[in-house]
Amino acid sequence: MSTSLIRKEVDEALLAFVDRQRPALLTISDDLAPLLSALGALLGGGKRLRPAFCYWGWRAAGGEDGQAIVRAAASLELLQASALIHDDVMDSSDTRRGQPSVHRRFEALHGAQAWPGDAEAYGAGAAILLGDLCLAWSSEMFETCGLDGDRRRRGRDVYDLMRTEVMCGQYLDMLEGTRGEASVATALRVVEYKSAKYTIERPLHLGAALAGAGPDVIAALSGYGLPLGIAFQLRDDVLGVFGDPGETGKPAGDDLREGKRTVLIALTAERASAAQAAALRRRLGDPGLDRPGVDEVRAIIEETGGLAACEAMIERYLGEAERALRSAPITAEARHALSGLAVAATTRSM
Amino acid sequence: MSTSLIRKEVDEALLAFVDRQRPALLTISDDLAPLLSALGALLGGGKRLRPAFCYWGWRAAGGEDGQAIVRAAASLELLQASALIHDDVMDSSDTRRGQPSVHRRFEALHGAQAWPGDAEAYGAGAAILLGDLCLAWSSEMFETCGLDGDRRRRGRDVYDLMRTEVMCGQYLDMLEGTRGEASVATALRVVEYKSAKYTIERPLHLGAALAGAGPDVIAALSGYGLPLGIAFQLRDDVLGVFGDPGETGKPAGDDLREGKRTVLIALTAERASAAQAAALRRRLGDPGLDRPGVDEVRAIIEETGGLAACEAMIERYLGEAERALRSAPITAEARHALSGLAVAATTRSM
Repeated sequence: MSTSLIRKEVDEALLAFVDRQRPALLTISDDLAPLLSALGALLGGGKRLRPAFCYWGWRAAGGEDGQAIVRAAASLELLQASALIHDDVMDSSDTRRGQPSVHRRFEALHGAQAWPGDAEAYGAGAAILLGDLCLAWSSEMFETCGLDGDRRRRGRDVYDLMRTEVMCGQYLDMLEGTRGEASVATALRVVEYKSAKYTIERPLHLGAALAGAGPDVIAALSGYGLPLGIAFQLRDDVLGVFGDPGETGKPAGDDLREGKRTVLIALTAERASAAQAAALRRRLGDPGLDRPGVDEVRAIIEETGGLAACEAMIERYLGEAERALRSAPITAEARHALSGLAVAATTRSM
Repeated sequence: MSTSLIRKEVDEALLAFVDRQRPALLTISDDLAPLLSALGALLGGGKRLRPAFCYWGWRAAGGEDGQAIVRAAASLELLQASALIHDDVMDSSDTRRGQPSVHRRFEALHGAQAWPGDAEAYGAGAAILLGDLCLAWSSEMFETCGLDGDRRRRGRDVYDLMRTEVMCGQYLDMLEGTRGEASVATALRVVEYKSAKYTIERPLHLGAALAGAGPDVIAALSGYGLPLGIAFQLRDDVLGVFGDPGETGKPAGDDLREGKRTVLIALTAERASAAQAAALRRRLGDPGLDRPGVDEVRAIIEETGGLAACEAMIERYLGEAERALRSAPITAEARHALSGLAVAATTRSM
């Protein structure tokens, strides 16, 4: 299957899964309908990167095309939906994928209905619960994908590890954000667990494990997936500061307002003069940071050479991933598809 | 096994599971240790009702004693830990099981370390992530319990349904809380999904399904479990207003400060004079409600006959559960144990 065809099949599998849940929810109460529409809106966006890597991990390990692997792969989008919904609550983000974030959507529902009580708390509570539902449904969708029990058992070990890793990575990300002084090495550790493993390496491993891959294929997929995953996150960090809001789906400078301690920021801080460092400290994490403030931070990131250093790191990790891919013991078709995904993951925002 | 022995074995299974996760977390970073200690403290409390019902559902359906069913049953405590941690964030509760709630614990860590940034947001974020981890771990513990794939497949259907039901029930609970005017019927619908099914009926079904129970046993367990579950929650509501904080683990009047629209409150509102109704509206959901305010609401609940009506409902549901139990097609041993659990569930706080 081509990457765009996989995307279409993943979309259909997700729609079918949510449609199967719909009657159960509406039998409990019509009042649950807003949960379904909020999830539908969120799932309408996203580039389905994780399912694509899972699918090609499966094919790389000799798995045959079919609906069951598409459903297993699509379940990763529900896990990701859970992570995004909860992340947006934690960061108080207003938008996601170019639309209001889930908690803001329920806050608006509260306002529109003129209910008494605290609209913001209502929005956050609804988002916590919908994120929980998505997390529960991701494992339900995986377990009911149609692959046999032995395959699922092998895949489940990867799935379990991946969930623990991403939740721990998120915690460390928040910790470094609040401490406010991550070194490049510390920021890279967060990237490894929160992004590189979660977005690329583990989805590849999941597909490969489901197909019964041996340790050589698993190792080769790590050789490609981990550096690619780091390059992916560094590209995302650059886009978070310099990207076009129309493409990123987030207002310009949101990462700066949230005070994210990215590798890009750490590379900049390493190179900053005392005056630049002071300006950086003042601007980062300021929720009221305006456009001139964003421009000032952008200038510092460029003038210190932080941006150039980050671009060079992206190139280095990408080169490492490409070299690993060339010598990986996988089919030519999988190699070709993974090469295309490497480009897709590091040239656009997710 | 006796109920106290099951409790001990469930505790041991939980400890063993968390101990197996520990090295994975600490390999990622020592900074993750506070997540493990917060979970350890939370799991130190709790009466293990859900595992007990799951275990006796299994035995009622002819399952033999063993470690695998104890592990499957114990996984429900991780699901419950997730629900409690997130619930406390949503309600801004300060305490749980007589200790600081998880988000307050991380807020205190932030303060003790004198980190910059927002301590309250840090606490909430850490609690959201630890709740997610517990939810992921509950399914991991269930799937690795040691029961064979066919049994787990049957149990998983119940598990999936139960998770969807409890999350939807929590949403409806929050919705009724914010709307602020639940009727007895509406409040009972919340009780059914949030508590009666989740705490008693589905754990029984889970154990029975794992043991391969037929529809007659499943139906008999519903006949006992649903009314008992309603009685359990009504008792919990009464204790939430009139209970001894030393037993409930929550400050007196916390349910009133949170503005919970319980069946007890709905029964009171139905019977209130205009003046009593106005006082009730003014007091319920007031976060600063002091001891005289709590006493005033208590007096209204008693004087209207709301309390007596609630106690009568508890008796009626308990009687229904006991009658269903007497005619259930299960072993005498299971009948005896379930009869004891009915008393334990409705005479003490959870």
